[in-house]
Amino acid sequence: MSEPSFLTATEALKLIKQKKLSRYEWVQSCIKRIKERESITQAWTFVNFDEALIQAKKFDDMTSEKFGIPIGAKDIIDVAGMPTQMGTSFYQHNIPARDAASIAISKDAGCIVIGKTVTTELGHRHPGPTTNPHNPKYTPGGSSSGSAASVADFMVPITFGTQTTGSIIRPAAYCGVIGYKPTYGDFDKSGILPNSPSLDTLGLIARSIEDLQLMRSIVIEEIINSEKNIDVKKIKFAFVRTPHWEDQTDECTKNELEKFFESLKKLNFDIHEQNLDELIIEASEIHTKISGFEFKRSISAERINHFSKLSEILRNGRLSDGINMSLLTYRKLQKQSEYNKLRIEEKLKQYDCIITPSAPGEALNALDYTGSPIFNTTWTLAGMPAITLPLFKSKNNLPIGCQIISHRNNDEFLLELGKFLLNEFS
Amino acid sequence: MSEPSFLTATEALKLIKQKKLSRYEWVQSCIKRIKERESITQAWTFVNFDEALIQAKKFDDMTSEKFGIPIGAKDIIDVAGMPTQMGTSFYQHNIPARDAASIAISKDAGCIVIGKTVTTELGHRHPGPTTNPHNPKYTPGGSSSGSAASVADFMVPITFGTQTTGSIIRPAAYCGVIGYKPTYGDFDKSGILPNSPSLDTLGLIARSIEDLQLMRSIVIEEIINSEKNIDVKKIKFAFVRTPHWEDQTDECTKNELEKFFESLKKLNFDIHEQNLDELIIEASEIHTKISGFEFKRSISAERINHFSKLSEILRNGRLSDGINMSLLTYRKLQKQSEYNKLRIEEKLKQYDCIITPSAPGEALNALDYTGSPIFNTTWTLAGMPAITLPLFKSKNNLPIGCQIISHRNNDEFLLELGKFLLNEFS
Repeated sequence: MSEPSFLTATEALKLIKQKKLSRYEWVQSCIKRIKERESITQAWTFVNFDEALIQAKKFDDMTSEKFGIPIGAKDIIDVAGMPTQMGTSFYQHNIPARDAASIAISKDAGCIVIGKTVTTELGHRHPGPTTNPHNPKYTPGGSSSGSAASVADFMVPITFGTQTTGSIIRPAAYCGVIGYKPTYGDFDKSGILPNSPSLDTLGLIARSIEDLQLMRSIVIEEIINSEKNIDVKKIKFAFVRTPHWEDQTDECTKNELEKFFESLKKLNFDIHEQNLDELIIEASEIHTKISGFEFKRSISAERINHFSKLSEILRNGRLSDGINMSLLTYRKLQKQSEYNKLRIEEKLKQYDCIITPSAPGEALNALDYTGSPIFNTTWTLAGMPAITLPLFKSKNNLPIGCQIISHRNNDEFLLELGKFLLNEFS
Repeated sequence: MSEPSFLTATEALKLIKQKKLSRYEWVQSCIKRIKERESITQAWTFVNFDEALIQAKKFDDMTSEKFGIPIGAKDIIDVAGMPTQMGTSFYQHNIPARDAASIAISKDAGCIVIGKTVTTELGHRHPGPTTNPHNPKYTPGGSSSGSAASVADFMVPITFGTQTTGSIIRPAAYCGVIGYKPTYGDFDKSGILPNSPSLDTLGLIARSIEDLQLMRSIVIEEIINSEKNIDVKKIKFAFVRTPHWEDQTDECTKNELEKFFESLKKLNFDIHEQNLDELIIEASEIHTKISGFEFKRSISAERINHFSKLSEILRNGRLSDGINMSLLTYRKLQKQSEYNKLRIEEKLKQYDCIITPSAPGEALNALDYTGSPIFNTTWTLAGMPAITLPLFKSKNNLPIGCQIISHRNNDEFLLELGKFLLNEFS
């Protein structure tokens, strides 16, 4: 058997059921991996190994079923007793008494929170120390930097991340793992730092779709009837290049996506090009303004009480986008956003899903910039569920993601489709 | 001069400008009043008098303009350094490092947070110790119990409350003060315990409309162009009795509202009866289910980690409403809610505002039940702004509120109208 930390949660749970693996050994293996790799990957802001091992032992000894899945939580998500530092220098002593809802539910099902993963500053752009597990000179992406890197580096099988623009899909794509941003509102956000509340979405990063399905079922506290029998031949795909295709997408990403498009056509899938350029440009403008306005308000405590300790990029980025907007303008933008969403839905109603890049290219050869979310903005604004699949490789042998998006509330279908595409094309 | 604690904030600030009152004296007077009355009214869960006096002194000594308004915050709203106990027995040591956005902004403008006001348990129904300042055998209403009682008892001029059903309007009406629930989303909610996030609204309680206008301007960080010149003779009023009129409204409330309706007619105001019974009944059913589902999720940490310490009424009330509902059912209800809202807007588009009771009657002669929110549910679900004005008295000489509701984003008009009605009819 390979090291348990390299297993997906679903694989490990199977071995546990067969008594070939204990939860204790699983957690121990994850801890070992973290200890080996953390000095390079720097995915964690806080860990509690002792407590994790105690929990694992306890679950092994219990007769009732507790999963024992080792997980990590982005450090804007409260875990009782662990500091929530939010990628800042001034919240070392911010130790919540209360678990975020998602954490309380996960723990109750037997997930073991090993620790908190690195986030960019307040979930915006200023990066933490995390590096890309495929090459430590490259960015892991952000803002869920540690959540993506820790999963990619086989430290834990599953992590929680959040996305306001592209903060799950991009780092997952850069790190070569599977990112999943649910339909807006699917996962409760109590106990998570709001960034831009009408956009913020709690989601997951893992190395298999089965793990995402399991974890989704845990978080929403429902047994999900996966659409096991989707007839892939009947799925209608839209291939959306977006207005960023010509100038802002690297050659390799374009080539891989075009080849994938051609393969699907050749295999007689029902796939068509769909141009949404106008709506995507409009969505991007609306997103910048709405997220700016909401961010300025949500982080009032930091903006007012800790301004001098905030990064330049935060002050001049999303914060400055929002600082001079009136409530009235914001209200008008919300209506425009609603109208943008309706028109996107209308244009896409004949399709089951969209195929588009996850990011403009491979991870950047830089650690001071987590990359551009241009390929994520529209779908986040529209509240649509998205996944990124590690289907391609760049010339530098770095992962390139393929983003699949579906209609709101169509998450089960999207995950099942992701499973099919991974099986066929990776 | 009367005791400064009896002044509204606007009145006190005028005296401060004229150098007839210092902020220190103002805060001192509020503290004196709290010390005199708190053993009966029990409006506070935590106070920090020393720090409040230090702040007031500091603002007096500064050359820059800081208001120095003493305020209270409902104890589900985080104030850094003060425990957020949420009306439970298990969060005495839950001391946030971070101010809620509304608190950070208010402090920055020079508001002085005297302390935290009593909330019902987690903002649901189980009451705290607060009594009604008009008669300590009567409930102050809830869930913003201490926020209403402290203002009514002249302890502070303004408090923050929150409303998920009727949690600002009802206690303000019962305590004979002015409650204001803004348009959904107008005030940011970062740092406030979510109860049912798609309904939760941060709002204010005060003894004058001018104070509400000032505080609204502070919280949204904008200078508001009040519609000073509203032509009251052109305002179109809808008088809405609701389906609860016959069986669930006490005689006195009905009589006072009918008399008010007749007065407005006689004064040639453009006022018409409007029947919304079907939509109100539907809204009530949708609200119960949506709030139940969201509450169950938001308070996962308490439901899972502290279940045995939760009240019977919480377990059997909103929590049980939500516990067996699926995400799919919830999604359908959200669509129904949207459709309900659109039909209400359509029915009301010819009017500028609605007049309807704030509560079924005077405060109840009981301390174990904070009263029914049936007159608030519809407007909260629709996200419409509402105020309650202390226009009437019951036979027991207890206050009875008149609720005025307007269209979303019409808050400035609503407050200005409230000012006119108070001037003319109280």
